[in-house]
Amino acid sequence: MVARGGIDLGGTKIQAVVVDGRFKVVGQARIPTPTQGKPRDVRDAIATALGEAVGAAGLTVGDLVGLGVGSPGEIDAAAGTVSQARNLPGWAGTYPLGPELAKLTDSPVRLGNDVQVATDAEFQLGSAKRYDSLLGVFWGTGVGGGIVLDGKPWVGRGAGGEIGHVVVHDGGRKCPCGRRGCVEAYAGRAAMEARARHLHEQGRKTKLFKIMKKRERTRLTSGIWARAAKAEDKLTLELLEEAVQAIGTGVASACNVLDPEAVVIGGGLGVRFGEPYRERIEQAMLPHLFTSAHPPKVHVASLGDLGGAVGAALLVRDVT
Amino acid sequence: MVARGGIDLGGTKIQAVVVDGRFKVVGQARIPTPTQGKPRDVRDAIATALGEAVGAAGLTVGDLVGLGVGSPGEIDAAAGTVSQARNLPGWAGTYPLGPELAKLTDSPVRLGNDVQVATDAEFQLGSAKRYDSLLGVFWGTGVGGGIVLDGKPWVGRGAGGEIGHVVVHDGGRKCPCGRRGCVEAYAGRAAMEARARHLHEQGRKTKLFKIMKKRERTRLTSGIWARAAKAEDKLTLELLEEAVQAIGTGVASACNVLDPEAVVIGGGLGVRFGEPYRERIEQAMLPHLFTSAHPPKVHVASLGDLGGAVGAALLVRDVT
Repeated sequence: MVARGGIDLGGTKIQAVVVDGRFKVVGQARIPTPTQGKPRDVRDAIATALGEAVGAAGLTVGDLVGLGVGSPGEIDAAAGTVSQARNLPGWAGTYPLGPELAKLTDSPVRLGNDVQVATDAEFQLGSAKRYDSLLGVFWGTGVGGGIVLDGKPWVGRGAGGEIGHVVVHDGGRKCPCGRRGCVEAYAGRAAMEARARHLHEQGRKTKLFKIMKKRERTRLTSGIWARAAKAEDKLTLELLEEAVQAIGTGVASACNVLDPEAVVIGGGLGVRFGEPYRERIEQAMLPHLFTSAHPPKVHVASLGDLGGAVGAALLVRDVT
Repeated sequence: MVARGGIDLGGTKIQAVVVDGRFKVVGQARIPTPTQGKPRDVRDAIATALGEAVGAAGLTVGDLVGLGVGSPGEIDAAAGTVSQARNLPGWAGTYPLGPELAKLTDSPVRLGNDVQVATDAEFQLGSAKRYDSLLGVFWGTGVGGGIVLDGKPWVGRGAGGEIGHVVVHDGGRKCPCGRRGCVEAYAGRAAMEARARHLHEQGRKTKLFKIMKKRERTRLTSGIWARAAKAEDKLTLELLEEAVQAIGTGVASACNVLDPEAVVIGGGLGVRFGEPYRERIEQAMLPHLFTSAHPPKVHVASLGDLGGAVGAALLVRDVT
């Protein structure tokens, strides 16, 4: 079996997979991303996750023909460096993640943008494999996006696909990015959490923080949002409705520009909330969609939580 | 001299040009688009405009090696038909404009989308000729857009580039398209005129309608807006500021998705207001731009009013 490794390096979790020659997942592991320390500590955590995934597949790291890593921050694919990954600890500078991991694997390591590799995974192997053009929307801590046009990734000058920073309310709510009125200001998990804390402090009742404490968390994870929604917590339902509206409006705006065949909704919240929310987002798009008579198809990311890591493994698809 | 004809078929004016082998304009004519009648009457008006332009170049229609037409509505380039051109008289159905014009010219006639050919003209010959990717923004009666990526037009499934229907205020002002909060609802000349009439009827003072009467017009043309702005008419300045903000926000959103090298501002108002408004639009983009540290270049369309017609002539560039 030709085995490849893939790492999805997120601000919250490191997801590692081992895939076979047809990119089927044969082993996987997930560990929390270090919240303190240096890039070196993150690199060690990646090594741990990879080791667990390889072990689960009944292999060793030496069996991998290559390793791909989907990373946040600015990526220099040729140099194998990651710079300014601000949601990773101590990573304001530049760290040679590729070479440092290659010491471990003894096989080629390639880096790619986390969102772009997840989009590519859905395009090559997932919900969008029957289409030629695609807008990938990753609804999680932030709201990221990736684009495939005519079968090829489109990243513009390197910063394309920022669907989370499409403006839906000019002069609207403050976004974690510092700007105002972006999709992410209403729909990003981090922004939703900040909004919930603010409203709770102002006296709004909510089960969100009770559930958080009960589950011994310090952040409102996707799972906590899902539990609170299931319990019909009013504040939760309101904030989710705002998120759906913002995503629907922003994605419709992007579709009015790109007119893609399909939209795939992934990310922690996108995958967690799944089909019912996909349908709500599709409905929220319609009033703004220039092509409302023949809208793009909207799908949930079929690779789910593993899409980012599988897409990372695709970075080394030509290594054998 | 190899001469080609180009027609920009607009809801207000028909612009005809004759270009030489290097696409330099050697003759041009402009006549009002018929506001009543049938597609046949529009076809006859195109023939008149073309005749005048050819005459001005010291040529006859028989001297043209080909004719290109940039048209609104739905275009079937292969069949040479235009359907549902709703800003042209009696054109809710399908009319074989290409074959009907070919009878006249005795040389190939090709049709293209009006905004896309204008974008292509700026890309091939105008302000954007040094770039590989471009967002064209045509600020006129409506707000249209065209996209070039990696040197090639991108139209999605056929309806891409609708920058005028990017949403800037979810639930905001009603747009002529029937939706709410689109760029065009604030920035399209038609929407601005409707807004001005409404506020004037409600008692707001403005010089706009006095200038319109004095100049014996029934619509607030680009020239009237420019005169009122020059006279520092307060309502005019307010509405133009709203327009600039909407264009800035919408274009920034589109740039956050596409990340193009350049933006070109054309169209009746874009060309009329020129450099000072280009700069204002550029400033209005900045607060929303993900790449504010290295923004795309913003230019005024250098082919001005003739860009659409010259771009139409480019449709027959390979005919000799």
